[in-house]
Amino acid sequence: MTGPSRSGGRKGRRTARDAAPKRKVDYRNLRNPFPVMNLVSDDRVHAMHDAALEVLERLGLKVLLPEARRLLKAGGARVDDGAEMVFIGREMVEAALASAPKRFDARAGARHRDLTFELGRLMFQPGAGCPHATDLERGRRPGTAQDFRELVTLTQAFDVLHMVPPLVEPQDIAPHVRHYEMTRAQLTLSDKLPFVYARGTRQVRDAFEMISDFRGVSDAEFAAKSHCYTIINTNSPRVLDVTMAQGLIDFARAGQVSIVTPFTLMGAMAPITVAGAMTLSHAEALAAITLTQLARPGAPVCYGTFTSNVDMKSGAPAFGTPEHFKASLLAGQLARLIGLPWRSASGSAANLGDAQAANETQFGTWGCLLAGATVVIHAAGWLEGGLTVSYEKMITDLDVLQMVAELCAETPAGEDEIGLAALEEVRPGGHFFGAAHTMARYQTEFYRPLVGDWSNFGTWSERGAVDATTRATGIWQRIVEEKTGAPELEADRVAALEAFIARRTADGGAPPES
Amino acid sequence: MTGPSRSGGRKGRRTARDAAPKRKVDYRNLRNPFPVMNLVSDDRVHAMHDAALEVLERLGLKVLLPEARRLLKAGGARVDDGAEMVFIGREMVEAALASAPKRFDARAGARHRDLTFELGRLMFQPGAGCPHATDLERGRRPGTAQDFRELVTLTQAFDVLHMVPPLVEPQDIAPHVRHYEMTRAQLTLSDKLPFVYARGTRQVRDAFEMISDFRGVSDAEFAAKSHCYTIINTNSPRVLDVTMAQGLIDFARAGQVSIVTPFTLMGAMAPITVAGAMTLSHAEALAAITLTQLARPGAPVCYGTFTSNVDMKSGAPAFGTPEHFKASLLAGQLARLIGLPWRSASGSAANLGDAQAANETQFGTWGCLLAGATVVIHAAGWLEGGLTVSYEKMITDLDVLQMVAELCAETPAGEDEIGLAALEEVRPGGHFFGAAHTMARYQTEFYRPLVGDWSNFGTWSERGAVDATTRATGIWQRIVEEKTGAPELEADRVAALEAFIARRTADGGAPPES
Repeated sequence: MTGPSRSGGRKGRRTARDAAPKRKVDYRNLRNPFPVMNLVSDDRVHAMHDAALEVLERLGLKVLLPEARRLLKAGGARVDDGAEMVFIGREMVEAALASAPKRFDARAGARHRDLTFELGRLMFQPGAGCPHATDLERGRRPGTAQDFRELVTLTQAFDVLHMVPPLVEPQDIAPHVRHYEMTRAQLTLSDKLPFVYARGTRQVRDAFEMISDFRGVSDAEFAAKSHCYTIINTNSPRVLDVTMAQGLIDFARAGQVSIVTPFTLMGAMAPITVAGAMTLSHAEALAAITLTQLARPGAPVCYGTFTSNVDMKSGAPAFGTPEHFKASLLAGQLARLIGLPWRSASGSAANLGDAQAANETQFGTWGCLLAGATVVIHAAGWLEGGLTVSYEKMITDLDVLQMVAELCAETPAGEDEIGLAALEEVRPGGHFFGAAHTMARYQTEFYRPLVGDWSNFGTWSERGAVDATTRATGIWQRIVEEKTGAPELEADRVAALEAFIARRTADGGAPPES
Repeated sequence: MTGPSRSGGRKGRRTARDAAPKRKVDYRNLRNPFPVMNLVSDDRVHAMHDAALEVLERLGLKVLLPEARRLLKAGGARVDDGAEMVFIGREMVEAALASAPKRFDARAGARHRDLTFELGRLMFQPGAGCPHATDLERGRRPGTAQDFRELVTLTQAFDVLHMVPPLVEPQDIAPHVRHYEMTRAQLTLSDKLPFVYARGTRQVRDAFEMISDFRGVSDAEFAAKSHCYTIINTNSPRVLDVTMAQGLIDFARAGQVSIVTPFTLMGAMAPITVAGAMTLSHAEALAAITLTQLARPGAPVCYGTFTSNVDMKSGAPAFGTPEHFKASLLAGQLARLIGLPWRSASGSAANLGDAQAANETQFGTWGCLLAGATVVIHAAGWLEGGLTVSYEKMITDLDVLQMVAELCAETPAGEDEIGLAALEEVRPGGHFFGAAHTMARYQTEFYRPLVGDWSNFGTWSERGAVDATTRATGIWQRIVEEKTGAPELEADRVAALEAFIARRTADGGAPPES
């Protein structure tokens, strides 16, 4: 949606929309309109890239999965199986960067939801990976399947969110069948690109099968184009664990998207300097990208980083800080050096949706935007440094993302818009409310906020003096109730999906591997 | 201050500072580090400039002050005194733009507070011109002299606020002596560049005399360099009223800074299109600049705009919107075309310091930053579209401004910062908390937030689950109580100031003119 639904029900809304000229703003295919900001000079970026290559070649990386070590060894790496250490030469990295596609497409449930990953594009994801969910009605609680479904519905409702991430962990579903629930919810409640956790080959294969069956594509078609994606975190510093390494291999072989994201907190799992932390992050990302290209040359892989700082007194992670912003800028410079689409992240360490939370998230988002990030995750709803996803903060942050999306559209400034005739029509000291120039545009010219309230203090007080976060409750509740923008489903595909899940569940499911 | 004061009293704070290595971040002399964003192509900017010149030449401007019409007529304008209309030829505008300085200095109460106005610099002001003040302790009320003094003290306490604006209207002081109180408060509680309202020649001369006496400069020294500034709003569309025109003349003749700021709300006092509104704003600004240069060639004048949109249903003004952002970008393009330093504005229409308020203000600020604005006003504390200044929002917004200021400093990325030795020191899966590289920097590497709280949910809950706005109360209260960073005063100058005020007050003061 490109604005709030204020009328009841889907039919009611459609009628209201017909009555007023609809603003034609496409939030789906965004290109980053902001000039790219460099934090350091090009020679410093090259120095960091060189240092990262030296880290991989001389210091090495611990790779816990034997199959990954075998692949890397076959690719030319020096491997110490006893110590599980792998030393990757720079020529291997260069070969991987040569074969990794600079641009690739991902196919969603409907053609207008398909995505293209390449530098210059701009895609948003809401906050993800949270063990808890919170809203003003039900409070803070461990995430459930219901929370996951509701948050998928919210993600679906807004064009400015371009793919579905693992919003919240549905802890009420047993781990060996949780991936069924998460995949089912994404397929039936959204037609956007779904996410699959890399928690072992069996779960991943299950999800691939569910997606290809539900999308009605053959195995060959599935392999030829990406239909889902995962996010791979390295265990900084310099460890690639079993599950993550397996995920990189499984997704690459299946032609599905891996978004490689070392999570390097400055001063904790990474050097305290932004240049040092990004050098480590870059080294780990290059190692992961190399593994994908050894598993399948040309496999779609997205560069990424999640680098922020910690409170050096408590060790608590912080987000939306100046250091986080700088890390995004450096990551963007490194991403442009290697030419790959890349993911950055916003976020907040606040414990509720207050001014701190709003400011941190928006500040973090601007870091991503000026860094030229292709995918911006945790851009809406993320609290407590990712421990909780907030329904209300999702809505208040979405207002910002929609405002950013408005800036992606071209602004006309022809003779009609300069409007000399209108300037002539209105006498000095007059007003433009009734001018023909205004009348022709007043329903469509301006962005209408989702939750922002511009009424004056008296009116606002009479209406109960409700703050934005509290107002957001009604907005998400309406969307969850109406399933705004939910895809039309084909009954036979849903039935087949359910049958698959029932069969696999009866067979014992697929426990996560590690 | 570059962080919160947590210890008691000035002496206590100094001791605490001595104990820990102080972060050396200069928030005083900022250059805008962000790449400039253009909204439209150069030819469209030229078209807008040409349209503005045509507005001035063909449609004309209503100038209510006879002296201003005489000056403009003497400068070559066609004047219709009966209709109070002035038609300004483009050659007059070009001459004015040739004589207006591209760079000028303003002298504050201490050399480290002096300011330079030129494109590329970056200065912030808190919210200004508000009839009301609000804080969580005392509620929303008409502004008083106490509020004004307290807000000057808050402005003084933060290096990231570069000059004092007319924060709140001290409505408890009679209009004919109000300028004495406002000038006294600024001079005695701050050493930053003071603001003087253009409310008639007598008030302006009083303030000039108070400032030059208090600063200890001769009349010649005062005239040779700016020691204060004013803001001149045109009455859009196309009216320059008596007081504003007189202000432009008085300040120009005295060599003091006028910041010219048409306040053009799209769809209300200006065309609904951003290109149309900015064309009108530009025309009015050029007329005002022309008047200053006719009054005194070479007079310091700052270009400016305050262009946002209104809610087309209610007419209520909105700030921090996509349209506001775009207007800032266009104003920046026009400012660069004419080469003058310029002022833009942030702001919020929210009625309290909630997520909407935070998001609108930060969004508006980013519009100014990417537009390359030299002075950003209303960047902290402004609510209700300027009807109220909030003490708490001042603090929460200051955290954002300080984070922006952090990005103005160069980020080192030499071999030490890349830190290959640190990367080698920490084994795979280890951490950097104890690394020598970390220990050498942990007290100074990161920005420490003013009000942001990074503690985890449990700790934060135990401490009372206090939101950022509520936490801000304690921060401003401490600053107001301690008068953090207040200047040392010379008793004889204060006495002379008081004597001047007593004498002038006894003589009947100086009623505002209009």
